[in-house]
Amino acid sequence: MHLDMAEALRRAAAADHGVLATLNAGRGADLVPACFAIDDAWAAIPIDSVKPKGSTALGRIRNLERDPRATLLLEHWDADDWTRLWWVRLSLVRAEAAPEVVARLEAGLRRRYRQYASTSFVELLTFRIEDVAGWSAS
Amino acid sequence: MHLDMAEALRRAAAADHGVLATLNAGRGADLVPACFAIDDAWAAIPIDSVKPKGSTALGRIRNLERDPRATLLLEHWDADDWTRLWWVRLSLVRAEAAPEVVARLEAGLRRRYRQYASTSFVELLTFRIEDVAGWSAS
Repeated sequence: MHLDMAEALRRAAAADHGVLATLNAGRGADLVPACFAIDDAWAAIPIDSVKPKGSTALGRIRNLERDPRATLLLEHWDADDWTRLWWVRLSLVRAEAAPEVVARLEAGLRRRYRQYASTSFVELLTFRIEDVAGWSAS
Repeated sequence: MHLDMAEALRRAAAADHGVLATLNAGRGADLVPACFAIDDAWAAIPIDSVKPKGSTALGRIRNLERDPRATLLLEHWDADDWTRLWWVRLSLVRAEAAPEVVARLEAGLRRRYRQYASTSFVELLTFRIEDVAGWSAS
């Protein structure tokens, strides 16, 4: 049931999107679906201009300025066959990545999402992966 | 882009599962996929014996004993058409519900998930819905 780290990271990298949690002083955790890329011990989540936003001063950025910890959940759901369920949880800390890491993460995002092929990102949030946990139903 | 509360709750109730965040003192937010039911201002998340678990002393329960705040995200992903994306975020506080509310929530879970038709729950976590936020790409 527990996934080893290599298998957890393999499944995480193949997921098409995740759910990002950042910490809000009042409400607790704020969750949003998120596009992402992983490169070795780093993860990137873009603030894009493709999806409409009420503001570029997003809650997730305010939260990360207050507390750099974040969590990204990747999961597979199957309504009919619960033996196929799995999830992988990445514990993240926001941190500056070296330019070559940023370049690989950006390339990964453009490879993973055709919507990003020809846009620039408003901001690229980079995180060190501090911990990996994974579960599979079978 | 912002969903009004009625529309947000309508979409939330129709989602087949969500992602539950609880607060871990060390890591920040712990996320797991979760089955759920909603009844008026209450939400229920079962601890079931259908999906295999490493332990019944689950992290989410330990977290809730320390901090009763939780967040449930319901979302729709569409890899090809990002105009169809939406999400709804319920801010929750764990609380005891009245027996008639618990009965309706349990009935809702059994109606929503055929896997629960004939099992009893290890535990039923009940939450007051404190806030509803919703976003739609179009």
